[in-house]
Amino acid sequence: MLENLIQAVTLDDENNALIVLDQTLLPNEKKFLQLDELKDIWEAIYSLRVRGAPAIGIAAGYGVYLGIKTSKAANSKELYEDFIRVKEYLGSSRPTAVNLFWALDRMERCFIREVEKTTIEIKKALREEAERIHIEDVAVCEKIGEFALTLLKPNIGILTHCNAGTIATAKYGTALSPIYLGEQRGYNFKVFADETRPLLQGARLTAWELKEAGVDVTLICDNMASIVMQEGKIEAVLVGCDRVAANGDTANKIGTSGVAILAKYYGIPFYVCAPLSTIDLNCKTGAQIHIEQRPAEEITEKWYSRPMAPRGVKVYNPCFDVTDNSVITAIITEKGIAYPPFGESILRMFE
Amino acid sequence: MLENLIQAVTLDDENNALIVLDQTLLPNEKKFLQLDELKDIWEAIYSLRVRGAPAIGIAAGYGVYLGIKTSKAANSKELYEDFIRVKEYLGSSRPTAVNLFWALDRMERCFIREVEKTTIEIKKALREEAERIHIEDVAVCEKIGEFALTLLKPNIGILTHCNAGTIATAKYGTALSPIYLGEQRGYNFKVFADETRPLLQGARLTAWELKEAGVDVTLICDNMASIVMQEGKIEAVLVGCDRVAANGDTANKIGTSGVAILAKYYGIPFYVCAPLSTIDLNCKTGAQIHIEQRPAEEITEKWYSRPMAPRGVKVYNPCFDVTDNSVITAIITEKGIAYPPFGESILRMFE
Repeated sequence: MLENLIQAVTLDDENNALIVLDQTLLPNEKKFLQLDELKDIWEAIYSLRVRGAPAIGIAAGYGVYLGIKTSKAANSKELYEDFIRVKEYLGSSRPTAVNLFWALDRMERCFIREVEKTTIEIKKALREEAERIHIEDVAVCEKIGEFALTLLKPNIGILTHCNAGTIATAKYGTALSPIYLGEQRGYNFKVFADETRPLLQGARLTAWELKEAGVDVTLICDNMASIVMQEGKIEAVLVGCDRVAANGDTANKIGTSGVAILAKYYGIPFYVCAPLSTIDLNCKTGAQIHIEQRPAEEITEKWYSRPMAPRGVKVYNPCFDVTDNSVITAIITEKGIAYPPFGESILRMFE
Repeated sequence: MLENLIQAVTLDDENNALIVLDQTLLPNEKKFLQLDELKDIWEAIYSLRVRGAPAIGIAAGYGVYLGIKTSKAANSKELYEDFIRVKEYLGSSRPTAVNLFWALDRMERCFIREVEKTTIEIKKALREEAERIHIEDVAVCEKIGEFALTLLKPNIGILTHCNAGTIATAKYGTALSPIYLGEQRGYNFKVFADETRPLLQGARLTAWELKEAGVDVTLICDNMASIVMQEGKIEAVLVGCDRVAANGDTANKIGTSGVAILAKYYGIPFYVCAPLSTIDLNCKTGAQIHIEQRPAEEITEKWYSRPMAPRGVKVYNPCFDVTDNSVITAIITEKGIAYPPFGESILRMFE
């Protein structure tokens, strides 16, 4: 089962192409794109055909390698010029995606390390660096899954929000990683997926990838989280995160804080799956996290066959919310599980 | 402002017609239907052109009157036969709507009271009874609004869920009644409307009717209730209800219990607006309330230009949930405000 998990991004080195699952077509079509032109890789990131911070980083790593692979540069100086052109071009595809720049900068540091070598050797080093970004993410997700699995009993009901799954990462996902690992071992989880308005990542992506993998998944609307908890259907909540502050306050997809408060009320553990790369020790508390506002049309019109709200109505559409550390049971990283008080336990993860 | 509130159902006695706002066209079109055939009244109830328990009751009362108004019956016995035919026909339009039968039975009791009179007198009595159903509902909603308004300060932010507004009732609505009364008096509330998935009554109906009336309304997704409370935008929550148990447990549109728990967490008062007719003293607690399950397609496909979830995914789609009395601040009826312990305070409303 785990071998067959869908991979959002892979390198087809033979054909000088990036293979990308077109997530904009989900859940209605499962189509892999073979992107052999740099402009198509740019477009795939720009148009959210690839999404999820780790998956974007991997696409950028491979993208920058593919972008200079066929370069005719005669020496490393010329190749570096090509490299910077490719890097800046890919960087313009989604300027707010932190992981995009993290990956591009990492590729550049690799280039600089190898700058004394031949262009062939540099290209090889860049390919290996991109592969490392990919492989490291698989390992991080798998470790998070293993740690999380120690907290979960077989046959329980698990609620998740948004998509922190295999298609948002290299493989496994973060919040969905323990579900896949558990499924492989016969844990037989019953997963409930919040549809996650307004962009419906839960309905379109999470329900889709879990169903593809044969996991028992049930789709609910966001406002049904309370009743499924009340009815005893949920014994743990697992979510991913966008950014974790030093005190454990966690920014994640809009609605996460509400799910955490409901879980606290019903006495259900609420777990945040967080690669160390999402923990920002310079950010003291969630109050310092800026919440992006998105267009009204996402709520009033997008997806719909006709407008679903009165024309011109005021809309408030925050993309994320901050979950207070007091309603988080544990934060699960690739280095282990942090429990309250998070100020101390998170720091220990970096030792 | 209050004079101009939209009325979902009115009688046009001169033209033997029922005037009905076609709520299936909202928010994209504001169209009143002139229904002068009994089958069209039946269809309007069946197809949810009229919705909201009180509005359905009013439509049924006028409908049964219009249905026998032009009867050629020579005496009251013949007229009664016509009456029963009409009553049964209208009763078949929405067999699960309790208020439909409540209104039809009330009309029948009226007929039986007047059975010794001439057919002309009986028809007149039936028209007056239907008008009383209408007028009484206006009065109930207005009283609920007045009591609720005593709990609200000017300029506050108010969150509401689903639609308990003027178009669900004769006028004013229940949860929206204090908002309209307050608006008239310059209270200048800032109302936040949950879109209310899956059927979007908040987006399509509440946001629409408040905007039409000039109330400051902002549409949010259901999963944004937590962030607007966290940000201090909400100082009271007002909701309607479908059924209140003797202990105050309240069944209302799916998602209501979650909003109540969030309000409790953030220290925000949560008010249920409940005509006495919705309080069921024979129902001891919310555990006795059966929760209707609805079709999966409401979540996965309805409204959308294409399916928004994987084909055949399991879906859980409860129509209502039960809000525990422990997270309800007060229940507001036309007889006054009930506070915890509700077991006693609710009983006093019936004295």
